[in-house]
Amino acid sequence: MNTQSCITGLVCPKCKKRYTHRELQHLCQCGSPLLVEYDLERAGYLVDPETIKTRPVTLWRYAELLPVLDDANIVSLGEGFTPLTILPAIAAKYAFGRLYMKDEGIIPTGTFKARGAAVGVSKARELGVKHVAMPTNGNAGAAWAVYAARAGIKAHILMPEDAPRITRNESVAAGAQVHLVRGLISDCGKILARSIPAHGWYDVSTLKEPYRIEGKKTMGYEIVEQLGWQVPDVIAYPIGGGVGIIGIYKALQEMQRLGWIGDQLPRLVAVQAEGCAPIVEAYRKKAKESEFFPDSRTIAFGINVPKALGDFLVLEAIYETEGCAVAVGEADIINTLLELASLEGSFICPEGAAALAGLKKLRAAGWLKAEETAVLLNTGGGIKYPDTLHFDLPYCPVDGTI
Amino acid sequence: MNTQSCITGLVCPKCKKRYTHRELQHLCQCGSPLLVEYDLERAGYLVDPETIKTRPVTLWRYAELLPVLDDANIVSLGEGFTPLTILPAIAAKYAFGRLYMKDEGIIPTGTFKARGAAVGVSKARELGVKHVAMPTNGNAGAAWAVYAARAGIKAHILMPEDAPRITRNESVAAGAQVHLVRGLISDCGKILARSIPAHGWYDVSTLKEPYRIEGKKTMGYEIVEQLGWQVPDVIAYPIGGGVGIIGIYKALQEMQRLGWIGDQLPRLVAVQAEGCAPIVEAYRKKAKESEFFPDSRTIAFGINVPKALGDFLVLEAIYETEGCAVAVGEADIINTLLELASLEGSFICPEGAAALAGLKKLRAAGWLKAEETAVLLNTGGGIKYPDTLHFDLPYCPVDGTI
Repeated sequence: MNTQSCITGLVCPKCKKRYTHRELQHLCQCGSPLLVEYDLERAGYLVDPETIKTRPVTLWRYAELLPVLDDANIVSLGEGFTPLTILPAIAAKYAFGRLYMKDEGIIPTGTFKARGAAVGVSKARELGVKHVAMPTNGNAGAAWAVYAARAGIKAHILMPEDAPRITRNESVAAGAQVHLVRGLISDCGKILARSIPAHGWYDVSTLKEPYRIEGKKTMGYEIVEQLGWQVPDVIAYPIGGGVGIIGIYKALQEMQRLGWIGDQLPRLVAVQAEGCAPIVEAYRKKAKESEFFPDSRTIAFGINVPKALGDFLVLEAIYETEGCAVAVGEADIINTLLELASLEGSFICPEGAAALAGLKKLRAAGWLKAEETAVLLNTGGGIKYPDTLHFDLPYCPVDGTI
Repeated sequence: MNTQSCITGLVCPKCKKRYTHRELQHLCQCGSPLLVEYDLERAGYLVDPETIKTRPVTLWRYAELLPVLDDANIVSLGEGFTPLTILPAIAAKYAFGRLYMKDEGIIPTGTFKARGAAVGVSKARELGVKHVAMPTNGNAGAAWAVYAARAGIKAHILMPEDAPRITRNESVAAGAQVHLVRGLISDCGKILARSIPAHGWYDVSTLKEPYRIEGKKTMGYEIVEQLGWQVPDVIAYPIGGGVGIIGIYKALQEMQRLGWIGDQLPRLVAVQAEGCAPIVEAYRKKAKESEFFPDSRTIAFGINVPKALGDFLVLEAIYETEGCAVAVGEADIINTLLELASLEGSFICPEGAAALAGLKKLRAAGWLKAEETAVLLNTGGGIKYPDTLHFDLPYCPVDGTI
């Protein structure tokens, strides 16, 4: 491909201060994450849905709406254009109209973190970064480690010691410097903040780095493209840091301004675990920001985030689209995971199962109507979570029969 | 899609006896696996590379060359059209011309077994099967379990107790009946053979079921399509049961007869571990079949197959394409796995690493030339193998710095 990014700069969604994309940026001076802006008029001249259809099946097919200026800086392992799988058996059982799952397990590293890492690392390479550093609960660290390796960038990663071992191995195998911490990801973040000044590493912590949202937003473009450039009625997303839903909302707004979709946006639904539901509590109070959720706990550790830096953006996406936020219990999550595997053959992560459990609740309550089309985001493959399920299985003797 | 399969029947590659595809079949009466035949002249009228380009990015884009008669029987989780990832850093280090990896980690279930299961289960559904049964070392069982679940077919699986736990969980979550065995996959096969008559289950053991080759062969179509309908000079494949290379060879022959590629076929390379190298030994002796490899052992457990039912087909594919067979050591496998992760960002399974280690040997020996294009098949994601690597990592105190 020979494409031209239409990026024009970065802007603070809170105080509207602008920053250049030609230098490394982090948060706004006011403390807010920054969002990337594009010349959408120019993008509309350069590309349209018909052209996109002919391009490689990776997230880079939307290159005009991505921040990398020179194609030569793209770091790709073939990420994106994941399946939008129809779920007819679940739809029949719970009287959904049409139900789809955007399956982010089918992507390098097995989780949606690959999208943010692919775009974030590519842009870091373009800006001359040699070292990136981040705290992680595992999957994001592994994704940034492998893309950094491909880019020739050294990654420095801090992980709680109970992060999934496979993400440790992935990161170390890719050549990252990994330190374990007997604490939480928030402790890892504090260690990193103290360590960075001495080294000058580029801090790519969630939302401190402005480009991973751009990678995540491509899920929104893909859902719409895969539905024939139609929007569904509802998109449900499991919310931890919230980068995915922020990205999808941004993509929907861009597509509207491009004229690729109409006025009606999907209602965006934030699903959280009852054991960690700061966004749901804020939504109930109609608050613009969330409060720290104490003693948070859930089997879906990817959404165990007691206070997200971008919470106000998540809530804005919900309010502006007339969506909602819903919490689900631990048993709901596991039962839904098993139900999806046994009825539809999709073995997914607990976070994705939470999203489906949330949709089931909304359907039962009538918030989601029988004739509507819903999409749930599954953020990763079940195969990356060997310890989520425990089954006692029968043994058959070597000389026996079953 | 509204497509027409051009299947005409099944034929024995040994004794040439023919069988109908309208009834369930297993092995030929002579004991050989059966191969599927198509009316390629008709297929050539119905479809061409330009049409295929416009189709969904799954293996079903080659539907005329697949055995399912009615699209309604297709059981799909979005499998196929996996990335063909270029490996420039490895190519530079070892003076390869162009080097690509067909990355079968980016597929439902995380391994290439999904292809055989998708096509095998779809055809089983078309033929009215209600129960499938198989012995497995894990990945194939998990793939058949999830696709069977989606098809509403009950799966009965026998697994050695030391098969990877994640494949157990995957299978059970999908509703399969799983029995563990304190023994090898061959013991599981014997138990199954004794058990089947009482139940009437459809035995889908490797190559006893004729349609999984058809799923696997799509890797061959995809490699050629992704290279712009050009063939590479060499394709290297890690050989266990050998279904993949048998399928790729079959695809190449079909594409030749369709006129989609020219006379020159890629040299097919079978890579095995030194600890289990029956095909390599047979190749050295120019034998047509392999002998049982005693006390086989390798970290790449997917290629720990001491005597494959389709060995003669693997050897034919090697001889007919002027390919070769090469064995690699355990340290080569692990070192190559780490090298690929750290230089290219691809964290793959040991079997895929073995294939690359084999190519490195052949390049060093001059068998593979500096100006040639090589493709290696990676059969699965490294994330499915949490116990392959062990690293001792440093701890950072919660109040420390790195």
